[in-house]
Amino acid sequence: MARTNVHRLRVAFSDCDPAQIVFFANYFKWFDTSFAELMGACGVPSWRETAAHNGIIGAPLVDAQATFRNSATYGEDLEVESWVEHWGRKSFVVRHIVRRGETVLCMGREVRIFAVQDPDDPLRIKAVPIPEDIRALCS
Amino acid sequence: MARTNVHRLRVAFSDCDPAQIVFFANYFKWFDTSFAELMGACGVPSWRETAAHNGIIGAPLVDAQATFRNSATYGEDLEVESWVEHWGRKSFVVRHIVRRGETVLCMGREVRIFAVQDPDDPLRIKAVPIPEDIRALCS
Amino acid sequence: MARTNVHRLRVAFSDCDPAQIVFFANYFKWFDTSFAELMGACGVPSWRETAAHNGIIGAPLVDAQATFRNSATYGEDLEVESWVEHWGRKSFVVRHIVRRGETVLCMGREVRIFAVQDPDDPLRIKAVPIPEDIRALCS
Amino acid sequence: MARTNVHRLRVAFSDCDPAQIVFFANYFKWFDTSFAELMGACGVPSWRETAAHNGIIGAPLVDAQATFRNSATYGEDLEVESWVEHWGRKSFVVRHIVRRGETVLCMGREVRIFAVQDPDDPLRIKAVPIPEDIRALCS
Repeated sequence: MARTNVHRLRVAFSDCDPAQIVFFANYFKWFDTSFAELMGACGVPSWRETAAHNGIIGAPLVDAQATFRNSATYGEDLEVESWVEHWGRKSFVVRHIVRRGETVLCMGREVRIFAVQDPDDPLRIKAVPIPEDIRALCS
Repeated sequence: MARTNVHRLRVAFSDCDPAQIVFFANYFKWFDTSFAELMGACGVPSWRETAAHNGIIGAPLVDAQATFRNSATYGEDLEVESWVEHWGRKSFVVRHIVRRGETVLCMGREVRIFAVQDPDDPLRIKAVPIPEDIRALCS
Repeated sequence: MARTNVHRLRVAFSDCDPAQIVFFANYFKWFDTSFAELMGACGVPSWRETAAHNGIIGAPLVDAQATFRNSATYGEDLEVESWVEHWGRKSFVVRHIVRRGETVLCMGREVRIFAVQDPDDPLRIKAVPIPEDIRALCS
Repeated sequence: MARTNVHRLRVAFSDCDPAQIVFFANYFKWFDTSFAELMGACGVPSWRETAAHNGIIGAPLVDAQATFRNSATYGEDLEVESWVEHWGRKSFVVRHIVRRGETVLCMGREVRIFAVQDPDDPLRIKAVPIPEDIRALCS
């Protein structure tokens, strides 16, 4: 059973667009924040620490997707529930569900990798196999 | 052959995150802007005008997805090429490719509907069949 | 003694720029959210309600200013303390102090008005004298 | 006579808030972009280059202010005119005027410094006297 994190937020006026509803790209921003909180809740050290320990500088996205079912507006309190659904060899899948009370607003799916600096080109990154210790912490 | 639009932009410092690269959610924001420009380039009236003419108040998203291949940083000039790939009965699919010169950075896919106010509840919207005139303009 | 509101937030990765610190414009966004919370905490009805009651559709800014003393980065917990410092005849002054623990990061000052639709042009707004009931609620 | 830069932009749907107008904090974002373009137009090297040459890692803000006169909405083309108004010993003042055609929307004022890493604490920065070569380029 994967560990989950619930990120709570209140929709700000500036999160909304002229249609009076949350501008859809903000859901992807909140997915990212909820994923970061999930890592912290599982005990994964900050990327500043892993960079020094095993070279991992972050978990960048290679794919992101969201399905939008219901809209939300400013002043409403939302919850983003997040968990790692699947571990591959070099990538993993994170799922997100955004709710307002019982109502599901949005469901998201991210594919991420763990990245180190490319030894051949310090301006580029490359994926490394999923570290066993991080996987164990999140499971 | 679908009509295409190319939206040009220069990456701002504030578009980038502490990893020095464009924060991924900004690609979704640019998809939305490029879609709006595509509608304008095809001669589709503004939603302010369609609202008065046939009740259509916009083209909200029901699904959005992006694949990230290469990163970009501030000061770089990007192009977002956009077109309608498929027309369904009540939804349509928009595709986006973001390039820096010859390099593909990101490929996106959106599913959108045309929305009118729900006559039973003015705070809600509902999808209408794709208007033939809009479809003709974009094809 | 003016009533105050304290808005709490955790800095997100996406709030920060390539210098690893909060992009300064986000402080203005947080001022706006904290002002909205202050109004709510004082018992001022939502602008949706005032629009129906006395025509007031919001409290737009005519001036905004911030002084930046110390920076913050993602994962840090901040507090924005906000209060109305001065009531004029048609405008009022809101002050904000952003702190991380005891450290002051930023001090802000906004001048706002209460706006109604211009009866001569529905696309424009105009300032009205400060409503006594709102002033009393916030004092 | 100070050199000026004109940054052109089209307001995006996502730049606007539920009041249908540009959310005010976005003007501060555009000031920052226009300042960066001004530096480039004057021939000031990128901060990546100055960091290697004289240690300067950027020009952070110590104060920002804007006066809002008229609003703008999505689809409108704006111009941000920017110039250095005053050079102090360790700080300098940048001015911005945002126009839509002949209409002035917003006037801004920023106080910035040139920063190097604090030799006593690599996580902090400190101001250095204005470099004569940068001042000469911008005048």
